[in-house]
Amino acid sequence: MLDSQSIASFAEMRRIVSEFPGPDLEAAREAAAREGQLTKPAGALGRLEELSAWLATWQGKQPAVNHPRVAVFAGNHGVAALGVSAFPAEVTRQMVLNFTHGGAAVNQLCKNADADLRVYEMSLDQPTQDFTQGPALSEAEASRAMAYGMMAVEPGVDLLCVGEMGIANTTAASAIAAALFGGTGTDWAGPGTGVHGAQLSRKAEVIDMGLAKHRAVFDDPFAIMAALGGHELAAITGAVIAARIARVPVILDGFATTVAASILLKLDPHALDHCVVAHCSAEPGHRKLLEKIAKKPLLDFGMRLGEASGAALCIPILRAAALCHTGMATFAEAGVSDKD
Amino acid sequence: MLDSQSIASFAEMRRIVSEFPGPDLEAAREAAAREGQLTKPAGALGRLEELSAWLATWQGKQPAVNHPRVAVFAGNHGVAALGVSAFPAEVTRQMVLNFTHGGAAVNQLCKNADADLRVYEMSLDQPTQDFTQGPALSEAEASRAMAYGMMAVEPGVDLLCVGEMGIANTTAASAIAAALFGGTGTDWAGPGTGVHGAQLSRKAEVIDMGLAKHRAVFDDPFAIMAALGGHELAAITGAVIAARIARVPVILDGFATTVAASILLKLDPHALDHCVVAHCSAEPGHRKLLEKIAKKPLLDFGMRLGEASGAALCIPILRAAALCHTGMATFAEAGVSDKD
Repeated sequence: MLDSQSIASFAEMRRIVSEFPGPDLEAAREAAAREGQLTKPAGALGRLEELSAWLATWQGKQPAVNHPRVAVFAGNHGVAALGVSAFPAEVTRQMVLNFTHGGAAVNQLCKNADADLRVYEMSLDQPTQDFTQGPALSEAEASRAMAYGMMAVEPGVDLLCVGEMGIANTTAASAIAAALFGGTGTDWAGPGTGVHGAQLSRKAEVIDMGLAKHRAVFDDPFAIMAALGGHELAAITGAVIAARIARVPVILDGFATTVAASILLKLDPHALDHCVVAHCSAEPGHRKLLEKIAKKPLLDFGMRLGEASGAALCIPILRAAALCHTGMATFAEAGVSDKD
Repeated sequence: MLDSQSIASFAEMRRIVSEFPGPDLEAAREAAAREGQLTKPAGALGRLEELSAWLATWQGKQPAVNHPRVAVFAGNHGVAALGVSAFPAEVTRQMVLNFTHGGAAVNQLCKNADADLRVYEMSLDQPTQDFTQGPALSEAEASRAMAYGMMAVEPGVDLLCVGEMGIANTTAASAIAAALFGGTGTDWAGPGTGVHGAQLSRKAEVIDMGLAKHRAVFDDPFAIMAALGGHELAAITGAVIAARIARVPVILDGFATTVAASILLKLDPHALDHCVVAHCSAEPGHRKLLEKIAKKPLLDFGMRLGEASGAALCIPILRAAALCHTGMATFAEAGVSDKD
């Protein structure tokens, strides 16, 4: 269905988004009918009921979380050389090795959730161009990264968690957020892995330089991604697109991931209806972004690690929602008296 | 260690509470030392780090969630005859059968969490006395129910979830909350399984009648439990006591469960330090209670089912916290550069 050659342009990517499938209303109706018969007061499972209805609507069937995948995209950023991160750029590759060897948080969280972890290492030796000097990526590079990200949605996967690893990518994400939703570097920059004081001011300044440089393209969200983004961020956008087409619900992780997905909202205000946001990150831009895109996170745990950690943590919650919906007895089956 | 004969009095129960073990500071120190070396920016796992430290402190060792138990206590209430519930009293027994047959929400949630479910059916044919007429339970009955609840903590269990099933027990719980923390029936009564309007006013009135009848015992939390509580609520108190002694951390479920645990705070302000609250229930008294006892719930999902559903839903979160703490590589092990 998706050929990475044919989609290596923004025009083709826009066409795909314009043909996004909508909610499966028949599956939604069936889920609502069943939910009303289950042995509990109506609505008593609260958000779990909303989540099972949402899963049914976007999977287009009885909800199930049997084959969740956690996709972590890793990329490097030219702006890392400007001193915007608390960690050196080589940590991106070191953490990819840590993922491979099973030592990172996301490895434990995938074990906890019985999820399939895939780590996508993207041109780590070729960081993006410093966006204060020119576009981070060419259109061809950004499109290829999106197409690459689409490969994370393979047959059989029934829930996709997306996340990222990339030293300096909260700088890129903050710049994209400002380009999409307005505001300055100071409005969107946060500590990331741990910058404060003068270094945080420098980060905001770098973002403002990027915004000034690329303001001409702010009417085109894919061009914003190319100008200010990164390989791993574009790949996340692609994964979210592919999931929609394949009817795979998505759990978005933290700030950088949610930013990468949010560019699609500028093309279609319903483009992220198949996505939930795992958690509200401690990165202050995330709370602001969630208000802008009107998404209510599942958890508010003060996490700020990235690497899909928050998304993977939420898999058991989604699985619980599906299991309650499909596994509970009805009042009639259980011989339980319904409400007077 | 615990003999159900010898503890069938409030005096003996008070003695046990007075001898509660404190936090294991050595385990806490070891956990903190390890946490600081793991391959992530310090603090980046947010609340998961707090939870693993808490597990270590109260388990007295490296944290682990290998044998979680979900204990659901079921009891019947004399006040059900006063029309305070949306469901008839026979639903308590019907739901116990539903638990036994695997059809309830908690069954699916235990499957999701790989947890051991135990359902404790408590004198369902002998509801408590209507508390507007006299004490719901005698001291001997309340003490026996507490001792019975203590049996839920068996060797090998490393995390205990407690919850309840009992038509009319939010009426009892609201009355206990008012007796412990002040206020009237109107302040604490909520919809429970779904009462509104005149029926909700009646529920508040019944609570006020109970409060007026038993005000003389409000200086003794165990006597409050006997006067206004129920078999399943006293059993929850007992389970929380036994878990403290056995160094088993506890996840408290919703409103009625948290009320039952909270009576211990009147004996020792640190009596619930080994407990976390799973979620903030949609039952309005729960949010008020959580403010009174200064506990921050893990989830805010608008759930209001009881039967330990919220607590069971949180087991994978606690397991995730333990797995991250024990399974992640250190910076040295992984060869990852630490912060500049």
